[in-house]
Order: sequence, then C-alpha cells, then structure tokens
Amino acid sequence: MNIRMILYFLGWVMNIEAVLMLLPCIAALLYGESCGLYFVVTMAACGGLGILATFRKPENTVFYAREGFVCVALSWVVLSFFGALPFFLSGEIPVFEDALFEVISGFTTTGSSILPSVEALSRCMLLWRSFTHWIGGMGVIVFMLAVLPLVGGGYNMHIMRAESPGPSVGKLVPKVRATAKILYLLYFGLTLVQITLLLLSGMPIFDTLCLSFGTAGTGGFGILNDSIASYTRWQQTIFTVFMIVFGVNFNVYYLFWMHKPKDALGCEEARAYLGIIALAILAIGWNIRHLFPSLLDAFHHAAFQVATVITTTGYATADFDLWPEFSKTILVLLMFIGACAGSTGGGVKVSRVLIALKQIKKELGTLFHPQSVKTLRMEGKKLEHGVVRSVNAYFMAYVIVFAISLLIVSLDNFDFTTNFTAVAATINNIGPGLAKVGPSCNWSGFSPVSKYVFMFDMLAGRLEVFPMLLLFAPNTWRKQ
Amino acid sequence: MNIRMILYFLGWVMNIEAVLMLLPCIAALLYGESCGLYFVVTMAACGGLGILATFRKPENTVFYAREGFVCVALSWVVLSFFGALPFFLSGEIPVFEDALFEVISGFTTTGSSILPSVEALSRCMLLWRSFTHWIGGMGVIVFMLAVLPLVGGGYNMHIMRAESPGPSVGKLVPKVRATAKILYLLYFGLTLVQITLLLLSGMPIFDTLCLSFGTAGTGGFGILNDSIASYTRWQQTIFTVFMIVFGVNFNVYYLFWMHKPKDALGCEEARAYLGIIALAILAIGWNIRHLFPSLLDAFHHAAFQVATVITTTGYATADFDLWPEFSKTILVLLMFIGACAGSTGGGVKVSRVLIALKQIKKELGTLFHPQSVKTLRMEGKKLEHGVVRSVNAYFMAYVIVFAISLLIVSLDNFDFTTNFTAVAATINNIGPGLAKVGPSCNWSGFSPVSKYVFMFDMLAGRLEVFPMLLLFAPNTWRKQ
Repeated sequence: MNIRMILYFLGWVMNIEAVLMLLPCIAALLYGESCGLYFVVTMAACGGLGILATFRKPENTVFYAREGFVCVALSWVVLSFFGALPFFLSGEIPVFEDALFEVISGFTTTGSSILPSVEALSRCMLLWRSFTHWIGGMGVIVFMLAVLPLVGGGYNMHIMRAESPGPSVGKLVPKVRATAKILYLLYFGLTLVQITLLLLSGMPIFDTLCLSFGTAGTGGFGILNDSIASYTRWQQTIFTVFMIVFGVNFNVYYLFWMHKPKDALGCEEARAYLGIIALAILAIGWNIRHLFPSLLDAFHHAAFQVATVITTTGYATADFDLWPEFSKTILVLLMFIGACAGSTGGGVKVSRVLIALKQIKKELGTLFHPQSVKTLRMEGKKLEHGVVRSVNAYFMAYVIVFAISLLIVSLDNFDFTTNFTAVAATINNIGPGLAKVGPSCNWSGFSPVSKYVFMFDMLAGRLEVFPMLLLFAPNTWRKQ
Repeated sequence: MNIRMILYFLGWVMNIEAVLMLLPCIAALLYGESCGLYFVVTMAACGGLGILATFRKPENTVFYAREGFVCVALSWVVLSFFGALPFFLSGEIPVFEDALFEVISGFTTTGSSILPSVEALSRCMLLWRSFTHWIGGMGVIVFMLAVLPLVGGGYNMHIMRAESPGPSVGKLVPKVRATAKILYLLYFGLTLVQITLLLLSGMPIFDTLCLSFGTAGTGGFGILNDSIASYTRWQQTIFTVFMIVFGVNFNVYYLFWMHKPKDALGCEEARAYLGIIALAILAIGWNIRHLFPSLLDAFHHAAFQVATVITTTGYATADFDLWPEFSKTILVLLMFIGACAGSTGGGVKVSRVLIALKQIKKELGTLFHPQSVKTLRMEGKKLEHGVVRSVNAYFMAYVIVFAISLLIVSLDNFDFTTNFTAVAATINNIGPGLAKVGPSCNWSGFSPVSKYVFMFDMLAGRLEVFPMLLLFAPNTWRKQ
C-alpha cells in the first residue's frame, strides 16, 4: 500500500473542498451572516492540511486498484469530516455525529436529515448543505480527474470506476480525463437550465440555487420544513421533470450532443427507466385519486413522488406515508430499483435489475435445453462474464450489508417498518422512509450507534458497497 | 411436450395420494368420526382418475427436463387439489380457496393456517392436515421414485432435482432410485425415534403422531390453538432438538450410517447451520431475559423459537411478536436463511448463503488483483460454474417473485410489516410472520387474490421458484 501517494491524493481532496467552501462564504457576506466565519476557519484548517500533504509529489507514484479503492473511500470520509465542521463549530448542529450524519447525507445525495427544523439554519449553512448534494452527485473525484493531472493514465480508470455509479462505467471517449470533463460540462449545463427555468418561474435566487443543487445531485435537502410543498404547481413540475432528467444515464445526453439521437433514444436502460416511471405514475395516480380534489391533482403528486423516489432524490410535496399501502409498496420497490447507472441517482440501478432479469430468462432457457449456450446481451453488446459476476457479487454484498444494518439498528427497538425503510432509504441514498422516518419526520431519534450505521450505509450506497467493504477487509492493510 | 406421459405421471401421483388417505380413514374409524366418509369419497375420485390415467403406459416415454419440471409443478397442484377436498366436502373449511390454502400450506410444510380455531376440526382432519407435512417434507415424488419403476434411468434425475431443495442435489449413491430409498429410510427412521421419545414422555399417541409429522416435515401445523405452548418443557425440548435435526442436510446422516463420522462432521453447510443457531440462541436469549422468570426459561424459549424459525417449521411456544425488535429482526433474518439443502426445511438454504459469501470474498480479491483467477470451493470441492450461475439466478428470481407478491398483497391495505412478513413466511415455508400474521393470529383476513398469491409463493418456495415460473412461461407450452 502506497500510503504517501494516498495522503497526496487526500491532500488534493482537501484543497478542493477548501475552494468549494468559497460559495457559502460569499453567501455569508451577501446576507451579512457572522457564522460565515466558521467556513473561513474550516477552509484554513482543511486547505492548510491539504497544502502540507500536496507540497511535494511522492517519488513513488505507483498506484494500483487497491490504492484506488482506498483513496476513493477515504476521500469521502475526509470530505465529510471537514464538511461537517462548520455546522458543528457554529453550534447550529451542536452534536458532532449529527453534523457528520447531515453532511454525509448531503455528499451521498441521500437527503435524510436529523434537523427537527431546517428553517432554523442560517442561509450560508443551508447553501452549503445543498451544495454538498451537487458536489456529491457527480462525484468530487470525477471533478478532480477533470481539472487536475493528478496520477498518470491507467490509474485514473480505477479511481473513476470506484466512484461512479453502475455496473460498468463506459468511457465516453478514450481518455478518462476527457470523459470526466464532458460529464461535468453536461452536469453544469443541465443544472444551469433548471436554474434559469426556476428563476423565470419567479422563485427567489437563494431558493433556486439550493433546490437546483438538490435536484441535480438527486439529493433532496429542502430549505423549508415542508420540503417542496409550498411552491407553485408549475415549480413543482419543473422539479419533477428535472429529477427524472438527472436520473437518466448521462451517456444518453452525450449521444444527443454528438448528434446521434438514434443511439441515444435506443438506450435500453433509459427506456426501461422511463417505462417503469410511467407505469408507477399510472398505478399510484389511480390508487390515490380519492385523496385529492381532482384526478389531475392526484397524478401531479403521483408523478412528483415517483420521480423523487426512483431517482432517490427525496423531495416531498405530500406525506406519502398517509397514502394507501399499495402506493407505499410501489414506492418502496422503486427505492430499491433506483435510477440509471451513470446518472447522479442511487439505488440498485435499472441496468442491474435488467441484468438480473436477463439472467433469470437465461436460466429458464437452460433448464429446457441444458446443452445450449446462451450469451447475455445489453445495449446490443455481449455482457462480459466479469460484469455479470460483479453484478451478482454486488447484489449479495448489498443484501448482506442491508441485513447486518437492519440487525444493529433494531437494537433501538423501533418498529420493523421504520427500521427496514430507514436502512433502505440510506443504503439507496433516498432520504425519507416510512413510519418514524416518513417524509414529515426526521432521524434525530436514533441512537449514536444507529446513526453511524446509517452513515456507513449512505457511503456504501453511494460508492456501491465494495470500496467501503474494502476499508474493513484485513487484506487491504496487509503488506504484500 | 409429451402430454400423455405427463398425464401418466400425474395419474400415479393420484394413486399414491389415494393410498395415503388410508391413514385418516383409519383414524376416523378408530375415533368413530362420520366425516371419515369424505376421505373415502375423495379416495374414490382421486384413485379412480389415477387408475384411468395409468391404465396403459404411453408408447412414447420420451421425457426431457422440460417435462420433468412441468410434472413436478403440476404434481403438487394436483396433490393439493385432491388433498383439499375432504376439508371442503365435509364443510369443516367451508370455502374452497381456504381449504386449498390450508392443504398447500401443509404439503409445502409452511404451516400457515386460515383456521381461527384448530381445535374445532375433527381428529381425522387434523391427522390428515399434519400428515400432509410429512408427505411434503421429503417430497411425494421422491417417494414415487423410491417405490415405482416409473420412468427409465436418466429422466429420474431431472425429476428429483426439480423437487429436492438446495442448489445441487448430490446423489448419495449412483442410482437415483437407491438414493430416494435411502432418503426415505432415514426420514422414516428419524421420525420413528421422535415418536418413541414423545410417547415415552407421556404424550398421547394422537398428539405424538400429528406433531411428529409436523416436526419431520418442518411444517408446523399444531393441533391446539396455542401450538406447542401447553406441552411440558421436556416435550418442548424434544421438539427443539428434532426440528434442528430435520433441518440438517440428510447427507450427513447417510455418512454417519456409512460409518464415515469424519466426513459427516466435516460438512461445511451443517457446521455453518449449527453455528448460526448457536449464535442466534445466545443473542435472543440474552435480549429477552427480562421477559421470563429465569435465564433458563429465556434460553429455553429462545432455542425453541430459533429452531422453529430457521428450520421454517413454525411451531410456537411464545408470542415472539411481543419480543424486543432486535430478537424479532434476528428471527426475520433466520426466516430467509432457512435450513440446509437436502433437508426438509425451507428458506434460501444455508449453502446458498455460503455460496453468496464466497462470491463476495472472491470479488473483493478480484478488485485487488484483477488478473488473478480464483475458484470457489464448497465442501472441499470446486464449485462448478453451472451451480454458481443457478444460485445467482435463484436469488434474482426469488427477489422478483417476492417483490411482485408484496405488491399484489398490498392491495388489501394491511400494514407493511404484515405484508412483508406474510410473503416472507409463505415463500420461505415458515408459517407465522409478524403483526397481523403473528404466531397468535391466522390468515383468514386476506382477500382471495392475496390467498392465491400466498399459495403460489408457498409452492414456489417449496419447489425453489423455477418449476413454478416455468408453468407460466409461454415457451413451456410451445411446440418445439
């Protein structure tokens, strides 16, 4: 293990975080909030340590897959630690583990909150809280790869693969750096479109920025206690559309950009994703029609809720915990399916579900014709054995992390629905669950142990389990 | 599809069922119950049709894997249909779908009941109800293979594989018929030991027979409304031990029988199974110690409950729905793990869980050393790719059947805990769940649609999903 190189890497993560904190600093200046000082303090600490670590590039820059995974996992831990400091130092979230929970929930784009009242936070804190969603959505390391010539060629792919969601990260273009740049350009561009539309709809600039960050990262932190419920119907519709947009595989947008609309529209995963959304809206809209004054109202809320859950954003316009069990069950299932690979959304990912279905179909065929050899195909291409194997291992690891989390959390003695949906909401990076963690509740009631379990689950969900598991595998830290 | 051959096969299933119904007939005679007549009527119908179908052996006896799976799935449907008739005709279960639910729950060794009061049933009905557990435990088709020279050589393996639980059915001896005979001898012998011990403990012969059938098949139908709670502690302990015994892979007993104790004790799956049981008893016993007058009492009930849940039997001595959430969560997780492959228990099976863990470990290794090639090993032997693939496909199919069932059942608008544990209890062939399907409740409140979903799940759980899925695959019925 090349510790020096890992420290160098983490140093750059700290430097970048220090720079990113300029945004809440500016907000503090504009709104005359003295608590902006805590950002300056954190920037000094974070940037200072960062500069110390990156002062000299290590001579031995050898960087294997193992280092890549450890770097990514530790980057997210370091990022979260410093990100939590302003909340804690300012006393706006007086308990450190609560501040850490909140900021991990931010970076992992989960959107679960331990705050009983969001509106009590100062503006610069609110902006930082939402900004973490935007940073975490596309990934801070993908950003680093885009702007810094950090480590040489082949290593970059290890790192990008560890941070990006989905079973097989396709490079859009042969170079990893160029791919990272394109991704961030698309991400930035789409966010800008949403900001423009919201401003045109008459939303104040502060709300627009915070909520657009939350949408783009599919995070879900709001700035009002009732989340998105008090905005106009038109504004809610913009959120619905953009949540769905940010849940689509970014490859699709790249293909449009390259003037290949046919390829873009043919994307198997995106079509399945949109199909599931349409079906779910129809089923829920019909199921809840008696709860709203008009059918249009019912479908408006159904669409918003489906979009917010399948993309694992977590905004709310209505308390779906009060909806019929059929609608709630659809939403719980959507929580697990999640958005597309290569989007900012969480969950298991539509492409993994598709690969699972293809495997079942293949197995049924094999039972009939034991001799026949069938290959699995996805997006028109043959699925490599390694991809299928890693999808299967992911499912198993996912289930086992889920089961162990459920077990530990149950020590708090809340009901089964609360515990089950709380673990589901964190490991899938959604935000709200049902019962005691429903859309109108918060997570402050759990014990510190449970909170740390949820933090682990949020990180495991965002980094797709294995990087976090590796941190705890004895082999990782053993000399070779 | 060789329809004639399938009918011939189903005919033999009916003949055997007619013969098996002699047992409740004898009970009716002994206890002077007139409702025994309904068994005679059913035997006449079932046996008559059976003789008609088996009168002449078809000329074309070609029998492929496809026919094998269809035969097994349909056998269980036919078995259940005729098995339900006495309950329905006698009016003791007046609604046909309820009678069908009860008897499918019996044959699949689930043990969920729609009866508000078991004690209202006549004795011959109670005996038949428990006897279905014993028949279903080792499998009626394995029994047929043991006693009838039905179809030639190679085909038998297809059939046995489709009915027997576990990822890879090992033939104990080269011949399938001989293997089936050994399995039934062991099964019969162990049941006899339990019967003897219970009789020695002073239990009446009727109770002994019914409850031993329920233990051997790991079914769980009781004959009293409070299940096993009113028996002596010594008798409860006999049940605890024998539930665990019948959850062990029968290979182990065969190895002991062959004087290979070293091989028997080295069985990886059985060791993991016993290890999980020990850990769960310790954790739950400690967690519920304040609910009982003494620590011994707590551990007694913990051991009974762990045994009944992991072997998916479903007997109860205490209402574990009132236990702390931690204990309940352990029990829910044990529901999914289930017993060993090649036992009479249900669930996912310990060996599949082990294979899943081995895959995760392998994947972690591959992340470090992408070039290295590792093979998975189980019981000291290399795991063939086909076995791993079918384990993975099983997991996927299991999750998808689970999700769809949950969705349909949620239309009844019960709470999430009820729905989730009801599906878990049926697909894992356990019996009781939590909340509205807890140990002190029954399943009569569900709608007919939900009941049919549960029946499908019980059969899917017993036959390990694929045979039941094949019944609904269009390819199955298409000409080749």
